Amino acid sequence: MAEISRRSLMRATLLVSGAAAIASVGSVGAATADDAVLASWNEGDTRKSIIDFVTAVTTDGSHDFVAEDDRVAVFDNDGTLWTEQPMYVQLAFILDRVKALAPEHPEWASTEPFKSVLAGDFAGVAAGGMKGLLELVAVTHAGMTSDEFTAIVSDWIKTARHPKFDKPYTATVFQPMLELIDYLKANGFKVFIVSGGGIEFMRPWAEAVYGIPPENVIGSSIKTKYEVRDGTPVILRLPEIDFIDDKEGKPVGIHKFIGRRPTAAFGNSDGDFQMLEWTTSGPGKRFGLIVHHDDADREYAYDRKSHFGALAKGLDEAPKRGWTVVSMKSDWKDVFPA
Amino acid sequence: MAEISRRSLMRATLLVSGAAAIASVGSVGAATADDAVLASWNEGDTRKSIIDFVTAVTTDGSHDFVAEDDRVAVFDNDGTLWTEQPMYVQLAFILDRVKALAPEHPEWASTEPFKSVLAGDFAGVAAGGMKGLLELVAVTHAGMTSDEFTAIVSDWIKTARHPKFDKPYTATVFQPMLELIDYLKANGFKVFIVSGGGIEFMRPWAEAVYGIPPENVIGSSIKTKYEVRDGTPVILRLPEIDFIDDKEGKPVGIHKFIGRRPTAAFGNSDGDFQMLEWTTSGPGKRFGLIVHHDDADREYAYDRKSHFGALAKGLDEAPKRGWTVVSMKSDWKDVFPA
Repeated sequence: MAEISRRSLMRATLLVSGAAAIASVGSVGAATADDAVLASWNEGDTRKSIIDFVTAVTTDGSHDFVAEDDRVAVFDNDGTLWTEQPMYVQLAFILDRVKALAPEHPEWASTEPFKSVLAGDFAGVAAGGMKGLLELVAVTHAGMTSDEFTAIVSDWIKTARHPKFDKPYTATVFQPMLELIDYLKANGFKVFIVSGGGIEFMRPWAEAVYGIPPENVIGSSIKTKYEVRDGTPVILRLPEIDFIDDKEGKPVGIHKFIGRRPTAAFGNSDGDFQMLEWTTSGPGKRFGLIVHHDDADREYAYDRKSHFGALAKGLDEAPKRGWTVVSMKSDWKDVFPA
Repeated sequence: MAEISRRSLMRATLLVSGAAAIASVGSVGAATADDAVLASWNEGDTRKSIIDFVTAVTTDGSHDFVAEDDRVAVFDNDGTLWTEQPMYVQLAFILDRVKALAPEHPEWASTEPFKSVLAGDFAGVAAGGMKGLLELVAVTHAGMTSDEFTAIVSDWIKTARHPKFDKPYTATVFQPMLELIDYLKANGFKVFIVSGGGIEFMRPWAEAVYGIPPENVIGSSIKTKYEVRDGTPVILRLPEIDFIDDKEGKPVGIHKFIGRRPTAAFGNSDGDFQMLEWTTSGPGKRFGLIVHHDDADREYAYDRKSHFGALAKGLDEAPKRGWTVVSMKSDWKDVFPA
């Protein structure tokens, strides 16, 4: 109970816009297809596939039963738990940070990739490729202590707003996915985020928004270093990539951080393909699910050709691999918390 | 309950010698200085310091109260949870593996560091330094899939025996520390291992022996790679160091895997110094503890000059840093499970 009330409090504090519709975490009977479960999902094959899977692995004596210790669910973040259009939220953070830091760096006005960022010239930023992006990451994510970076992210996420929906990014999370996380947790699953995004960018708010604690958040990282500064120990963030938790990196990250193969995996783009492949090729009952963004009215419609979260191979292979594909438009009653 | 009975079963299965005295995980009232708690610890300042700390951080309304979500305890493994003499258990594994693999490698009879290993010439092995050790790690820990390595470790740990105590290594764990882990868990702590040893060497048995699941085991690692072999996805272990989780690496590992500063840290050697320093320099109530091996009769007596688990700086600085130093000889009623 302490966990739930604290989380509610944190959510309420964070979602300053008042859009803090909190998914109910109740004493949901294991695997009962109760109406109170997955309330924002329309009745149909998609919702049924989730409930059937959870019922199968949690029913003691069932052929597909999975011991509670072994129930592990992994979720991608961008595009799976919150919106990733018109750009990854972390990229919006990077652009805002460059603007905020620009007064201390007059040379940026004439140096790429900063010049393009400051001019709002995204084609110019894109032209800088990976090298340019890493330079942007270096100046916005490194050169400070871990505590300082956490404070920067926490301050930004409290005030930054989504350009289309005009609400905090933490309110552009998907209500049906919050309910899914809660449903899995109520059924004994350990729930992890496995994201291509920055691990330290997600950890400051993931517990309040998703109910997923820092130690269950896996993502891309830069190197850090421990040192004692004037008698005070700090973790210093270095301008060097440590690990890219995307595509083939996701099973590697899962193996490194969790140490066992998940029972269920949830994603939305081809960056999640290997995570779903690794999860669902394990022995015993497994579950893979892809969120398909086909709802231009309520969120966005995109797949094969998107700059962010492109989905092609996953769509093509889902049927033969037995993965559930969610139609945001048809399967979700609501998209965002009310 | 499911968790406890499964764990008991795993322990019983693993500890084939029958030495499976399982620390009781009961409904220990939070922070009560009950006689049933820490039963293998003698009455005195050491035991009292642990109970006082736990009482302080778990008593709602107390100045030192720590919310349950934030209660994180980290334990070193070698020398803290099990014996590390006459050599690290993982080194015994490496030596056994080299011997087991030698028939397939006739060239090892004349090539260092293998020649020295096969001759039982530890001075020769030591003369090879870090380079030689990494070669031994490469041939014994890499070049197979993660599942294959898990099976190798699991098979070895079932049969290998400690040379002095003539029992399985999994029975040379410290009963008072098992009780301490259980006491912390019963009081809402999340318990992690943070070891200089190999993460994949510990994970196959840590849950059965300590009740610590794979995702809560942090250690040194080699790189891995995801690939699909003839249609079957595997995690392949590569002969390249990924991360050394020792000394300054321990706070880095804690930050990477857990994402928050622990409330309590438990170690035994100067390899744990920075972990204790990082933990106990955080704001609010913190706890640091060092196991001092001063019991030549029941285990081993060593500190400043040991080849394994040397302890000097920790002993010198513990008093001024307020860290508890455990005298194995005086503070522990029993050392190993009965």
